[in-house]
Amino acid sequence: MTAEMKTERFYIENASKFDDQVVTIKGWVYNRRSSGKIKFLMMRDGTGLMQGVLFKGECSEEAFAEFDTLTQESSVEVTGKLRKEPRSASGYEMGVQSLKIVSVAEPYPISPKEHGVEFLMENRHLWIRSQRQWAALRVRAEIIRAIGEFFDNRGFIRFDAPVLTPSSCEGTSTLFSTPYFDEKAYLTQSGQLYGETGAMAFGKIYVCGPTFRAEKSKTRKHLTEFWMVEPEVAFADLEENMNLGEAFIEHIVQSVLKNKAPELKILERDLTKLESIKGPFPRISYDEALKILEKRGLPLPWGEDFGAPHETALGEEFGKPVFVHHMPSQIKAFYFKQSDTVGGPGVEGTGKYALGCDLIAPDGYGEIIGGGQREESAEVLKRRIAEHGLSEADYSWYLDLRRFGSVPHSGFGLGIERTVAWMTGVEHVRETIPYPRMLNTLRP
Amino acid sequence: MTAEMKTERFYIENASKFDDQVVTIKGWVYNRRSSGKIKFLMMRDGTGLMQGVLFKGECSEEAFAEFDTLTQESSVEVTGKLRKEPRSASGYEMGVQSLKIVSVAEPYPISPKEHGVEFLMENRHLWIRSQRQWAALRVRAEIIRAIGEFFDNRGFIRFDAPVLTPSSCEGTSTLFSTPYFDEKAYLTQSGQLYGETGAMAFGKIYVCGPTFRAEKSKTRKHLTEFWMVEPEVAFADLEENMNLGEAFIEHIVQSVLKNKAPELKILERDLTKLESIKGPFPRISYDEALKILEKRGLPLPWGEDFGAPHETALGEEFGKPVFVHHMPSQIKAFYFKQSDTVGGPGVEGTGKYALGCDLIAPDGYGEIIGGGQREESAEVLKRRIAEHGLSEADYSWYLDLRRFGSVPHSGFGLGIERTVAWMTGVEHVRETIPYPRMLNTLRP
Repeated sequence: MTAEMKTERFYIENASKFDDQVVTIKGWVYNRRSSGKIKFLMMRDGTGLMQGVLFKGECSEEAFAEFDTLTQESSVEVTGKLRKEPRSASGYEMGVQSLKIVSVAEPYPISPKEHGVEFLMENRHLWIRSQRQWAALRVRAEIIRAIGEFFDNRGFIRFDAPVLTPSSCEGTSTLFSTPYFDEKAYLTQSGQLYGETGAMAFGKIYVCGPTFRAEKSKTRKHLTEFWMVEPEVAFADLEENMNLGEAFIEHIVQSVLKNKAPELKILERDLTKLESIKGPFPRISYDEALKILEKRGLPLPWGEDFGAPHETALGEEFGKPVFVHHMPSQIKAFYFKQSDTVGGPGVEGTGKYALGCDLIAPDGYGEIIGGGQREESAEVLKRRIAEHGLSEADYSWYLDLRRFGSVPHSGFGLGIERTVAWMTGVEHVRETIPYPRMLNTLRP
Repeated sequence: MTAEMKTERFYIENASKFDDQVVTIKGWVYNRRSSGKIKFLMMRDGTGLMQGVLFKGECSEEAFAEFDTLTQESSVEVTGKLRKEPRSASGYEMGVQSLKIVSVAEPYPISPKEHGVEFLMENRHLWIRSQRQWAALRVRAEIIRAIGEFFDNRGFIRFDAPVLTPSSCEGTSTLFSTPYFDEKAYLTQSGQLYGETGAMAFGKIYVCGPTFRAEKSKTRKHLTEFWMVEPEVAFADLEENMNLGEAFIEHIVQSVLKNKAPELKILERDLTKLESIKGPFPRISYDEALKILEKRGLPLPWGEDFGAPHETALGEEFGKPVFVHHMPSQIKAFYFKQSDTVGGPGVEGTGKYALGCDLIAPDGYGEIIGGGQREESAEVLKRRIAEHGLSEADYSWYLDLRRFGSVPHSGFGLGIERTVAWMTGVEHVRETIPYPRMLNTLRP
């Protein structure tokens, strides 16, 4: 054992590095039970759970006596010897020698029995200590780590877009706003337009931060505050954009499988479904998607956007993520490059198709990537801005990208909470972020 | 050359991997000049600059003819052979063979001549293409990468705190607010209180995201929207908190030196100053700091907070970052643990000293870390909340952390823009973030 190891603080997730050693767990009582001369103390330290076993004679008399005063979530420092225990999740248990009570907890409101969601949401600051919430948020952290790793390793520059913006990306009806000294600022819905300016300066960038939508809808897929990651690449077309998205999703899924397998087990996630998430992902045009939907008994008139049932059906058709490209221009934002034909070159003018690509996750988790190739002509873009009833003056800086060295460029946005929901298999996005913000939910 | 390398897109920063090969730069014209039968084309592709040399005879006649139509920032695809050129920053130059114009830029508003700051800020979306801005924002990206790396490698869980909050951390006078359905939400000033809930669930966490302050002051150190990283550790005291901060700053500085040396050179940063930023950092109490300030001709009455001149003087005294701990309670927030003596144990009750620690950067860059040990007694905290005129009901969830398994815990916040300013040596924080938000600055 090196000197450095001696001073390293012990955490349960590193148990295998301390095999057969005497260590101290600094943590909280998860639960406890007695069985004659043996007492069992399940402890959590934030990195995992470990059972401590108190044998009369082996552990101090004080520890044995104080055991019964320990309530759920009381904080303790427990010292003992680690030993292999294959039946436990960590592979180890502790033969307790001594126990120091840091603070005895008042009666803890969250017990193993069922609680209503409203109650749990009001106690979110405590609920996150529960196994499933804990596991889901650890997967979230891994996803964000993997996102940074993917882009940083590929030479993308992280480019933070502002939250406070003077105008909106797609209309103001679903925007939060704040007085900003003598004017009004809106909370961003997307960093994409700023990201495009970054792509022209740095070649390839990614924006990663919170975005906001004042939607009154109450669904299991919507938050009012949600995190997005939005890469943008200069000199990249629709196909390269899909290549990037595919490699990106594959990296995230494989990172979670590799680094957060115990958490996925706690969440009872079907690993075989995640293991199969490897490229190439199917790529179909919107027109092809309509045919599949018709075949599956969900006909949709051309020009209409998919609803949840359509996304679920497309997910079922392929059993892995599927890109849908070349959507009707009429349902897409003003900045998409357009084309008159599927697969043809982008034709200048108002085309039938937008060079978009949405990635639909399997198992009903819906669209997790939305993106495409951007319009690069200042003239066309000006016309679109007018058609969409937007103010050209508000977008003059955005138009500048087409005046000064315009290039073909593409990008996409990935919703982090939806991705966490998909990876963890949790039903509702409220469990995919520490403090979800929704209609009627602003606390704690 | 492997098949994979053949398809890898060429970027200037990877020139050494393509020595003596024919490659295509997809980028923009930085500038150009002619000298008889030779023409020089300085190109940027977002990852660096490279000079292309056009020799009549060696390059296509079209390229030679079109050269003269190229305006600054025109987008081009230029193909040629790389060759070593020790005098250039990238170590290479290109013998141009052919040239394809993607888009001829309109007269570019930013020329090498001097521009006023107001003009440059209005054209921030273009200004970021200029060498110094480009370099500073690449250093920023590296700092954020190194931040994630530091914490992820140490088992910290990234824990995103909400931007939309129901109440404030330290009063409402400098808060932005938005209507939130039937109530009012405030934009967060700090994720710390939420981070503390995370530390109790995960042992050690870090919050990283934008924070907001509606300050009317116009200084070179203040933004209304700025990024903070805030670690929080359960079972950690003031000293461990300083140990963490020290290792953290050292990691950031050494990562920037290692990975962004060319950018620091563009910024003309004095590298020897950064190279000396290694622990241990001096740690002095507030009382000791007052003595130093008096000696340096800047006497300060006990109980007053440092101003910029005092921070600068303390930075000069040591020439490296210095921790100042045990500040007067009266100038610190309600949640600090207090003590009646410097170096003594935290005494329950209202102590003279707050167990805080601020890290002051050298060279006048001011406080870059602020943090300390948190009060762990519910009773004391309740009294403080009342003393500070805050509502106990608003903080009931925060008090719960002391009711259910309270433990000693500590954390700090690091302002990312101030850190970027310090690393890059830029004078004003407006150049440390892609789109700075300040009094009267909300555009683009």
